[in-house]
Formats: sequence, C-alpha cells, structure tokens
Amino acid sequence: MAHETVTIAVDAMGGDRAPDVVLPGVAAALEADPELVVSLVGPEEVVEPFAAANERVTPLLASQTIAMDEHPAQAVRQKPDSSIVVGCKALRDGTADAFFSAGSTGACMAAATLVVGRVRGVLRPAIAAVVPAPARPVVLLDIGANADCKPEHLVQFALMGAAYARTVLGVSEPSVGLLNIGEEATKGSSLAQAAHAMMRERVRGFIGNVEGRDIPAGAADVVVTDGFTGNVALKLMEGLSSVLFAEIKSAMTSTRIRTLAAAVLKRPLRDMRRRLDPDAYGGAPLLGVRRPVLIGHGSSGPEAIAAGIAASAMAVRLSLVDAIEADIAASGVA
Amino acid sequence: MAHETVTIAVDAMGGDRAPDVVLPGVAAALEADPELVVSLVGPEEVVEPFAAANERVTPLLASQTIAMDEHPAQAVRQKPDSSIVVGCKALRDGTADAFFSAGSTGACMAAATLVVGRVRGVLRPAIAAVVPAPARPVVLLDIGANADCKPEHLVQFALMGAAYARTVLGVSEPSVGLLNIGEEATKGSSLAQAAHAMMRERVRGFIGNVEGRDIPAGAADVVVTDGFTGNVALKLMEGLSSVLFAEIKSAMTSTRIRTLAAAVLKRPLRDMRRRLDPDAYGGAPLLGVRRPVLIGHGSSGPEAIAAGIAASAMAVRLSLVDAIEADIAASGVA
Repeated sequence: MAHETVTIAVDAMGGDRAPDVVLPGVAAALEADPELVVSLVGPEEVVEPFAAANERVTPLLASQTIAMDEHPAQAVRQKPDSSIVVGCKALRDGTADAFFSAGSTGACMAAATLVVGRVRGVLRPAIAAVVPAPARPVVLLDIGANADCKPEHLVQFALMGAAYARTVLGVSEPSVGLLNIGEEATKGSSLAQAAHAMMRERVRGFIGNVEGRDIPAGAADVVVTDGFTGNVALKLMEGLSSVLFAEIKSAMTSTRIRTLAAAVLKRPLRDMRRRLDPDAYGGAPLLGVRRPVLIGHGSSGPEAIAAGIAASAMAVRLSLVDAIEADIAASGVA
Repeated sequence: MAHETVTIAVDAMGGDRAPDVVLPGVAAALEADPELVVSLVGPEEVVEPFAAANERVTPLLASQTIAMDEHPAQAVRQKPDSSIVVGCKALRDGTADAFFSAGSTGACMAAATLVVGRVRGVLRPAIAAVVPAPARPVVLLDIGANADCKPEHLVQFALMGAAYARTVLGVSEPSVGLLNIGEEATKGSSLAQAAHAMMRERVRGFIGNVEGRDIPAGAADVVVTDGFTGNVALKLMEGLSSVLFAEIKSAMTSTRIRTLAAAVLKRPLRDMRRRLDPDAYGGAPLLGVRRPVLIGHGSSGPEAIAAGIAASAMAVRLSLVDAIEADIAASGVA
C-alpha cells in the first residue's frame, strides 16, 4: 500500500529505559515504513548522532526531561524545553504531524491540551487504552484524564473511541458499550443512567451497558467509562495478569518433573502473553486534541516503540482528528 | 476449640443448582461443627425430609423462591413467603443468629435491609467480597449495593470492612486502603479526595490510597470504594481470570506433545485455581445489617456452601455486628 509521507515527532527521552530502547524502536519503525520521517526530540548528544546516521531522522533539540513521577501540569509549566513540551510545540507549529512518547502520561496530556489544544467541540480530551482481549482489541476510555465526569463527557468519549477503532484499528462499524453494573438501562450510578439515555440517542453502534467481565471477554469494540473507573480497571487488569502468571509459573515449577513439563510449554505460553500484550497496539491515544498524540507504556521495549510510531502514522494517514471533529459536530453534544 | 451453639438459617433454594448442592453443603457444615444448628428454609418437600434425617436441622417452611434475575426490591415485596424473606424474618424474630444464601445478592440485600434492619448509626449497608489475592485475602467493599456514594459512606465501609477482617478473617490490625487513581492524597475524583481526608482522621489502620493493581497484589487487608467501581472491579477480576485460564488451556493443548506435558501440570494448576477461588472464604457478607447475612456465589458447590455456613457461624461467635456498631459509634461519622 502506498503511503503518504508523514512526520512523527518521537520523544527520545520517554520511558523507563530511554533513550536506549527508543532509538532501536525508531530504527525499526523507519525500516517498516519507507514514507515515514521522524523528528527525534531530545538532548543534542542523543538526537544529533542518531539523526546524522539516519537519513529520515531530523533532530529536534530539547534540553530538559520530565520524569515519570513529576507533577504533570507543574512539570509542563516549569520545563518549557522538555522533550514532551517541545514535541507538542512541533505539532502546534505544523513541523510534525503526530507525537509519540513512552514518557509520563499526565505530562503528555497536560502539554497536548495546553500547547496543541482541543479539537473544536470537544469538552474534555480523554486517554484511551487498547485492551488486547482475545476475542478482539477493546478501546477502553477514559483511563484517567477525567476522574469526575458528566454524562455529555461520556457521550463524547464514545464518539472519540469509536473514531479511533474505525480509523487506526480498522473496525468498520464499531460497537460501543457503556461500562455499568447491570444490563438494564435503569441500573447503575446516576452518571451511568444519564449517560445511557444520551448515548442511546446519539451514539451509532451503541449496544447498551456492559459489565466488568465484558471487557476481557471483548463484548464491544469500545467501552466507555469515567476516568476513575477506567483507570482502576486498567491497572487491575495489569496487576491481576501479572499475579496470575507469577502464580502459574510457581505452580508449574514446584517439582522437578513439573519443571520439565513446563519447559515444553514455555513457548506457547510466552506467545500467548505476547498476544495479550497491550503494547502490540501502539500505546494509549490521547483523543480530542488537535493532532494525534500516543503514549507508550513506560516499560516499552523497541518493538512497542515501533508499534507506537506506526499507530501514530496511521492516525495521521487515516485522519483520526478530522473523524473526531466531524463526529462531535454531528452529535450536537457540546 | 469449644464453640457456642449457633443457629444459621440456610436458604435451601439459593444458587443455580439449588437445592441439590445446598443439602450436601449443609451436611458438610454440620459435620465440621458439632455446635452448629441449621434452620433450613425452603419448600416442605425439600426441607422436611432433610430435617427428618438430620438431628441438628430444623425445617423452616417457605413456599416461594426468588429467581436470580428477578428485580430485587420488587421480588422481596411480592414474595413475602420466599426463602430469602422467611430467612430474614427468622433473624428479626431471633429464631436464627445469621442467614446464608447462595441466591440473589440484590434480593438478600433488600430483604435484610427491610426485614432485619440496619445497625444503629449505619448510613448504608454494603456488600463486601473477599478477594483471594495470593499474598492475603482482601476485603473489597462496596461491591454493588451503593452505586452513588458520599465520603461518609466510604468511611463507614472502611470501618465495617475492617471489623469483618478483624473478626471473621482473624486479622488482628487490618490495614485499610482507599481505592484511587494515584498515591497522593490530592489525586482522584472529588469523592475519593474527600473520603481520603475523612479516613485519615477516623479510620484506624488507614494506609492511604491504593490503585487497581494493588487489589490482586494484596496491598491492604481492606480496600474501600463506591459500589459502582467495586462491582466493575470484582466482575473484571472474574472475567479476566476465566479468559486467561481458557487461553492458557488452549495454548497448553495446541499440539500433542504439549498436551502430554500439560497433563503433568493439571493438578498444580487446579490446586492453584482452587487457592484463588473466592468461595473458599465463605461468600460475600452484607455489612451494616443487624444480624450477619452472607451470600454465596450462584455457582457455589457443596464446599462453598459449607464454607459460607461456617463463615456465618464465625460472624455470630465473634460478634461481628457488635464490633461494627461499636466502631461506627466511636467514629462519630453518621
């Protein structure tokens, strides 16, 4: 397939092992996509030599770095020359089409909102996660940008999540569920009840309420909730997976014969874990800002970085932002 | 250890396979506890023959049954002679000390609140689940009784959950965490922020915020949240466990040699699943009603029924309700 050239600004300093894993991730992304140009954001000593050695990489200098544990909004204000803020300025100025970082989610959200700005009509940008349910990837949002929500926010999250599924994930008519604690429309919190009524009117593909168990079961392409519940749900899935796999490993190696049997199963189990690895889908998109911004997991390896850059390029080529703007305008919810 | 005689009303008709699994569950509970008396609630043809054959079982007739999918409050009003309502009346009248049912959680909650009544000072009774994290069992509440909560409700949930951990689970000084989306006191929804401030003043053992991943990690003995988030979290854990185990099974049997290796690992994996089975802790207690009421999973087998009856007896012997009443009074939150 022929691609239009796109320029992705990539945060060289984002992630727990940056820049070491970011640079090979950029190289892999460039190799996979001949129409990709990367604007590598970071300190001179990191980005200059890499750009000199790679034809389709331009250096974008940023002398500061925002750490994972800094207060997001404060760090963005106090570090105007940080890689995250400089990357977002490149979007604002039109020198890059999208921004990818495996750094602080909160700082990326703060910088994107302040520097890049919201899509017209969007009340609150949201952060989505692509949950790798075996049945199908599930776009879950909001996962933490908005702890307190109103019903109209959830309606907009639904529209933005569906636009992401339709464009970047290639789902032609995404189904949308509202996370709730019962199937009937009258169930749940007052927020969920009010959102249900509005979504029934205004969200194409709305299939009604879904429950906690429906997320891993892949019962809908998009699952909508407030940022408090979504964040708890996402971290719970991460935590439970890691506890269960640790328990399985210890059960499987409790005797010598079991350890031998487990050796035979090492590969299929590792393949399975990889299939269920959220990083395969390119990280968490910020939805509702004027240019695509995607955030990788702090623990991203080179493959996850490459996947995140590729998803960012897809968001540009498939006009994610235009789709969101059009759907928000058509919904009349503002 | 010497036990005081207690009478537990048991719903013969509660659960997906009732009364078939309930009766052997009752028999097992009686065998394990010589000071236990069971008041078996259900239709004459079920409870009379079983009582005739078991010395420490008395029949308590109830001609109606509330199905799992009936509207709870409505069913309780329309079926005054149902096993759930009759069981709760036995608590009110003092002919039984506690009630156990593997039937509808909502109907048990409605009947307990209406018929048995709230503990003095309790604003909202809550439903707790004992989550079998490998590190330690975690009391999670509320798991669905109260979709919309105020900060003072969460404070009371903390006190009631801690009383359950201290008595029935035997944890001498339970640690209590507030489920939130960040560690700092200023993080999270307005509800969580306000609750954090109140809990710091009024909840002994309060360790601050915990996040979604901390539930399976067993980071606190008691984790407090609103009934919306708690219900989503509980169902998500159930759903994710079952999806992961299904994936593991399919990965482990994808070739003939793997299937042979998997056979060696069947027992340790089954033992592990059993260790992580929530039913081992005796079901979900309703906290804040004037007599102990515990609810088993609808899919409970005889062992889970027996565990639920045993936990109900412990709640009576260890004066759970008195502990809750005293702690609520001492807290000054009402």
